[in-house]
Amino acid sequence: RVDGERLWDSLMQMARIGPGIAGGNNRQTLTDADAQGRALFREWCKDAGMTMGLDRMGSMFMRHEGAEPDLDPVYIGSHLDTQPTGGKYDGVLGVLAGLEVVRSIRDMGIVTRRPIVVVNWTNEEGARFAPAMLASGVFTGVHDEDYANSRTDAEGRRFGDELDRIGWRGTEAPGARRIHAMFEYHIEQGPILEAEGRQIGVVTHGQGLWWLQVTLTGKDAHTGSTPMSMRVNAGLGMARIIEAVHRIAMDHQPDAVGAVGQANVFPNSRNVIPGKAVFTIDFRSPDLAKLTSMRTRLEEEAFRIAADLGLGIDIEPVGHFDPVAFDPGLVETVRNAAQRLGYSHMNIVSGAGHDACWINRVAPTVMIMCPCVGGLSHNEAEEISPEWAAAGADVLLHAVLDAAEV
Amino acid sequence: RVDGERLWDSLMQMARIGPGIAGGNNRQTLTDADAQGRALFREWCKDAGMTMGLDRMGSMFMRHEGAEPDLDPVYIGSHLDTQPTGGKYDGVLGVLAGLEVVRSIRDMGIVTRRPIVVVNWTNEEGARFAPAMLASGVFTGVHDEDYANSRTDAEGRRFGDELDRIGWRGTEAPGARRIHAMFEYHIEQGPILEAEGRQIGVVTHGQGLWWLQVTLTGKDAHTGSTPMSMRVNAGLGMARIIEAVHRIAMDHQPDAVGAVGQANVFPNSRNVIPGKAVFTIDFRSPDLAKLTSMRTRLEEEAFRIAADLGLGIDIEPVGHFDPVAFDPGLVETVRNAAQRLGYSHMNIVSGAGHDACWINRVAPTVMIMCPCVGGLSHNEAEEISPEWAAAGADVLLHAVLDAAEV
Ligand SMILES: NC(=O)NCCC(=O)O
Ligand SMILES: NC(=O)NCCC(=O)O
Repeated sequence: RVDGERLWDSLMQMARIGPGIAGGNNRQTLTDADAQGRALFREWCKDAGMTMGLDRMGSMFMRHEGAEPDLDPVYIGSHLDTQPTGGKYDGVLGVLAGLEVVRSIRDMGIVTRRPIVVVNWTNEEGARFAPAMLASGVFTGVHDEDYANSRTDAEGRRFGDELDRIGWRGTEAPGARRIHAMFEYHIEQGPILEAEGRQIGVVTHGQGLWWLQVTLTGKDAHTGSTPMSMRVNAGLGMARIIEAVHRIAMDHQPDAVGAVGQANVFPNSRNVIPGKAVFTIDFRSPDLAKLTSMRTRLEEEAFRIAADLGLGIDIEPVGHFDPVAFDPGLVETVRNAAQRLGYSHMNIVSGAGHDACWINRVAPTVMIMCPCVGGLSHNEAEEISPEWAAAGADVLLHAVLDAAEV
Repeated sequence: RVDGERLWDSLMQMARIGPGIAGGNNRQTLTDADAQGRALFREWCKDAGMTMGLDRMGSMFMRHEGAEPDLDPVYIGSHLDTQPTGGKYDGVLGVLAGLEVVRSIRDMGIVTRRPIVVVNWTNEEGARFAPAMLASGVFTGVHDEDYANSRTDAEGRRFGDELDRIGWRGTEAPGARRIHAMFEYHIEQGPILEAEGRQIGVVTHGQGLWWLQVTLTGKDAHTGSTPMSMRVNAGLGMARIIEAVHRIAMDHQPDAVGAVGQANVFPNSRNVIPGKAVFTIDFRSPDLAKLTSMRTRLEEEAFRIAADLGLGIDIEPVGHFDPVAFDPGLVETVRNAAQRLGYSHMNIVSGAGHDACWINRVAPTVMIMCPCVGGLSHNEAEEISPEWAAAGADVLLHAVLDAAEV
């Protein structure tokens, strides 16, 4: 078993970097806080005898050598970046549990045939730069590097410029690595494991996603002196589309969700009818037909809503992945590990996107989940217990030892 | 008649300060650009032999002496501040036409019995600090100084601190002036005069207004892994209330308008269900019963919408004035002036709020309007013709000469 206390201690130390305003974290990708978090992780890995590879997307590959260095390594990866008002565990648990696995293996004097590489994938959250899972997407050839470098945040700063600015761009070509298997350990971010009283989620599938960024163009005008009949109100159009997103998701129940998380009107002044609105729709389902159907219906309705109000409309996809089925062999490996350790477990579908969803396209991949309190995530109040954290890390240790061949 | 070319030239010079991004202006109240605009106006007034009074709200009172300095002066007032994406004429025309009236009187060697005071009222727009017409509201005792000083902008900066920062706080107590009459000349900001082909609007009434700031409180949560049934989505509540505002305004036609100009969700991240939404409703009507009824119905519906979604709700009024009837004697003075000058004219109701609406509570007040292209205002593309500008200034000159007694 891993050292649960050491793992918890590392989590709490990392959480001091980029503190939030309500007990959580704001350590968004490519900020100064991200650079600080990376440096601390590198230091810990160095202390554990690991060496660093860094690719041109800033993804960190921390290598623990195996008895046979030429064999393809086993990877353990997740992310250290957070939402603007994020929790202390989302992503961070998976990276630091990877480190804890290596620390434990060393403590126990175990030598694996295969090397083990713990990865911090850059910009998993997609909060600052859409889409999410950007660096793992480049690694697997879903996006090209130019696309990634040119993504901009709300202030118009480019991903590539910010990566250079914080000094974490490496020289390794993204994707130039052979992966024997990858494991991602993550908090569930949903309510199921806690409700069912299970310690471990064996993740068999992941939901697919569409992010659609909508831009509505109306006409700035005075809220007082412009007759109702002359208004071209982009804010009203946005309101109608937000309602449509909700209705469409409800019409696709069960196994479908939809919401608008980011919404902005311009010029955003109390006495100006918004002449522009920009917002992003998030649709997800584990069922590809439902996912496609939600997008199609939304586009139909949104164009009708815009036409009714005389608004210009542009819909740009800014994030997408199909539903994922993880590697059946590795799913079995994880289930066996949980069984062997005597942890209660169940199959589960990941509601969120993860780097594992992209890596699964190029190498056998699987995920392990632990519960989180009230299913709450992407919230500073996100919480787990040290016991939950340690149980999942134990499963990770056993599954990794299986794959890395002792 | 005034010197229309000189008036136009001053408008164009002022428009160079705080340029917008699309041909208009961003010279929001108490910014550095506002300070620059004030300094230019003061210089022009000094050149025209006027002296300055400055009150504790930063309102500028530029005095042209009369033959009988002890008589109550005639005031001409409007504002030099703009919307974030505002036009070159909204407010500015009224202040600079006041200056042009004084310049013309001096050129003609006319001496009035009463002094004439041209006023730049601070923070008329209410875009940066709600409510609108803040300094004229303090001048007339509607608001107290502490209230005004403590108003904050979107970045949390206080009105009082920003006034001190730009160095335009005076020592004169707001309201410590006797006003014989006040005239405000303004662009219509609506489509009626242009559509009717009239040069002059004789403003008999002004619409009343309610600004209601709504705060909805839900729960930040993951857009992917949170089941639809567990969501407490403040953005969805905002969307429903924006739609309700529109419906309620439509149900009160004619003579009623309603919209949401400012709308923000938090944390405003693509994959976070908004845990908070803050937005401002703007309802207006010249009919007090309709104005009250719209507010009442909105409050009922908003509380129901919030309850349906499990959201917390707080509704704070951040701006209000009752419908206004301007001084019948001064209305007649304006109409006679337009008649005498041979300008086509019609009675009109002001759709926007103006400093004149507050001053009307403490002294006889009236407004004069000129058309604007397409009725467009609170938009950088706001436009008027030099001839329209000059015609209204001519009417202002004649009406002021009547009131100031030649
Ligand atoms: N795990 C996680 O929250 N990833 C961010 C991408 C997503 O929105 O699913
Ligand atoms: N005239 C004008 O636009 N004033 C701002 C206050 C309002 O919104 O009516």
